[in-house]
Amino acid sequence: MGKEGFFAKQSELDMEDHLIFEYAFESFVDPEEAAAHLCQEQSTAQWKRVDVDEDLRPRFGAKVIDLKVLETMERSSHPEMGEGEGPAYSCRVKIAHPHANFGPKIPNILTAACGEGAFYCPGISVIKLMDIGFPEPFLEHFEGPKFGVKGLRDMLEVYDRPLFFGVVKPNIGLTPESFTALAYESWMGGLDIAKDDEMLGDVEWSPLSIRSALMGQARRDTERRTGEKKIYLANITDEADRLIELHDMCVKNGVNALMVNVMTVGLSPIRKLRRHTEVPLVAHFDFIAPFTRVPYYGVDSNVIIKLQRMVGFDTIILPGFGSRMKTPDREVLENVEECLKPLGHMKPCLPVPAGSQWAGSTIDIYEKLKTIDFGIVPGRGVFEHPMGPRGGGASLNQAWEAHRNGVSLEEYGETHPELKAAIEAFG
Amino acid sequence: MGKEGFFAKQSELDMEDHLIFEYAFESFVDPEEAAAHLCQEQSTAQWKRVDVDEDLRPRFGAKVIDLKVLETMERSSHPEMGEGEGPAYSCRVKIAHPHANFGPKIPNILTAACGEGAFYCPGISVIKLMDIGFPEPFLEHFEGPKFGVKGLRDMLEVYDRPLFFGVVKPNIGLTPESFTALAYESWMGGLDIAKDDEMLGDVEWSPLSIRSALMGQARRDTERRTGEKKIYLANITDEADRLIELHDMCVKNGVNALMVNVMTVGLSPIRKLRRHTEVPLVAHFDFIAPFTRVPYYGVDSNVIIKLQRMVGFDTIILPGFGSRMKTPDREVLENVEECLKPLGHMKPCLPVPAGSQWAGSTIDIYEKLKTIDFGIVPGRGVFEHPMGPRGGGASLNQAWEAHRNGVSLEEYGETHPELKAAIEAFG
Repeated sequence: MGKEGFFAKQSELDMEDHLIFEYAFESFVDPEEAAAHLCQEQSTAQWKRVDVDEDLRPRFGAKVIDLKVLETMERSSHPEMGEGEGPAYSCRVKIAHPHANFGPKIPNILTAACGEGAFYCPGISVIKLMDIGFPEPFLEHFEGPKFGVKGLRDMLEVYDRPLFFGVVKPNIGLTPESFTALAYESWMGGLDIAKDDEMLGDVEWSPLSIRSALMGQARRDTERRTGEKKIYLANITDEADRLIELHDMCVKNGVNALMVNVMTVGLSPIRKLRRHTEVPLVAHFDFIAPFTRVPYYGVDSNVIIKLQRMVGFDTIILPGFGSRMKTPDREVLENVEECLKPLGHMKPCLPVPAGSQWAGSTIDIYEKLKTIDFGIVPGRGVFEHPMGPRGGGASLNQAWEAHRNGVSLEEYGETHPELKAAIEAFG
Repeated sequence: MGKEGFFAKQSELDMEDHLIFEYAFESFVDPEEAAAHLCQEQSTAQWKRVDVDEDLRPRFGAKVIDLKVLETMERSSHPEMGEGEGPAYSCRVKIAHPHANFGPKIPNILTAACGEGAFYCPGISVIKLMDIGFPEPFLEHFEGPKFGVKGLRDMLEVYDRPLFFGVVKPNIGLTPESFTALAYESWMGGLDIAKDDEMLGDVEWSPLSIRSALMGQARRDTERRTGEKKIYLANITDEADRLIELHDMCVKNGVNALMVNVMTVGLSPIRKLRRHTEVPLVAHFDFIAPFTRVPYYGVDSNVIIKLQRMVGFDTIILPGFGSRMKTPDREVLENVEECLKPLGHMKPCLPVPAGSQWAGSTIDIYEKLKTIDFGIVPGRGVFEHPMGPRGGGASLNQAWEAHRNGVSLEEYGETHPELKAAIEAFG
């Protein structure tokens, strides 16, 4: 195979016509040959007809615009994934792929970037898609978040602190009545957003029709009593063709945010939901680890964050800090930045770094992120609070008040029993 | 955390009420504790309310029904994925998960089996979902293939040999007219099924409306001229909410099979398409490698084969034999078996092990599979044949005739120039 036809200078291409696929890969053949193959296999694998004098590569071929060999090794670092006879090369490549080959469609973008072409490329043992760069005109085809961070804050009328989500626990097994009683307590304690667990969908023992009606009513009651705005985030994860129907039923019943375990349904079905929705959409991260967590293979989690924002999520729940969530701090920080940084015309979406949180987590996360535009999402930290979920909800607010007043949690806890109990139980 | 409540004897459970999730994992804590955690995190993470005397585990808890420690190691074999201070344990576990926790819904099954609970479990460094066992009554909720192997054979009236698919190449860049001319030639040569490449969808330079109309017409012309039945397999991979619309347009235009790059769209949207479809559905394997190819992490490809069959694919194109497709023979054989073996009420679906094939591949694959119920899917092996796609199509049939007559390819090639040319070009 010749390499010619699959290399270009970025300055010679109209970059508005291309997406940039960035991969880290290891080859056991000449890196230029491997990179050319990567372009060939994901675009014009055969670029001419037999007996026809033509060359489809200039218009349709993906092209290497940058290739760096980071390291030359004696042999493959992951021989079980493929190896050659000679040395192995650790590489980083940027490929400009003409987007007219697929158009502004999630499944066809994923096919080009993560399909047979990328993952079964001759001469390449391991590969990870690190980023997709989108030109601004291409991004115009995607709606992005409808509400975004500001829309969510406007709903809650909370502008000066992180947002407090709480996963109602026990997460499965409660009747809609018991579930609602717990959520009500947590809201009364000061929780902003009471939410369904990712495992709790529309099930026989807690039909969403009943749960959403009770929760919608309880939310309005709480708002009337407290003068504060509240959100019930219902998990409508279900077969793709039920999303709109569940949206309509939930919204009618007073649900004011909807969660989808996005990669279990597919990114694509969210686009229709986004165009239809009357309330913010929240993504949960199930089925993402299987293809993002191996350092040298699969897809970088940032790519999936970006795509979740593009299809229209207002909030993205993602694996947060700490050994519990097995995610390096660097990756969490990048994921958070991906939610908030400029992306074409799109609104920022609220990052919610999750995992075994309690009242004190807000401050730890704030100190890492240096912004208040995030949410925390404790479960047991609110609902297994020794004083019950009302105490759990209160403890979240008290911890942030302590921080705002420049007082240690312990000191503030002396006059705030809910915080004190939280420190003793979870601190 | 106590382990109690998350173990059971299979004989004490009603297995019709449970799915069996089978994982291979490595723990850096006591394996029983790790396995119990795996159950807890994927089901009743908190199983009682504060101050309420209750235990939700008996009804809602996932339970270990079998745990084997295969090996005890001094330390984690993949320390970058997590490790403890002491030894590491390589384990295999079967978990009975009550399916009333989620119901017969793909996204909710995937959340339970591959969600936060499984992939962020304390004490477990690496984990791979190896199988999901479904009780027969649960399978009744899934339609499975509408046509299956027999339905596909009935359409083609071919019962005595493997089926010959061919990917029209150049795969992208051709006008609908040029594309159709090539496909016509390949059919005339003897190809059964001319198909779109996974990268060729509904694009501006080859709108499916035009391509499907030309191809539908060409297919009928070919059938009239040859007296043989032919299939055009159109790739309708697109945003989920376009699948039905594209189905209707294609079928109206004479397309008689449809391909979806399933995991780029999502398994779930296929269920609606399956209930609606008038023609066989074919799955292509893009975006599966990222979570199946690492031996110790993610999801075993067999699980995805099984789910593809359950949601209704009549044919599954999968990575085939040989170093080109980076898949061990054992895995290809298991994938093929998964397509064909009994699965509740469901019809078998046709396995198509793919990858750099030509006329001779049919025999190689037949000798490995020992069944004729499979397809081959050459691209260049037909469309870069030195005598053009008509020669390429003919070479496939000639190779199989040679095999059937007990004659070597070389010998048969002496009197069959298309086969001879194929041997010289690709053999």
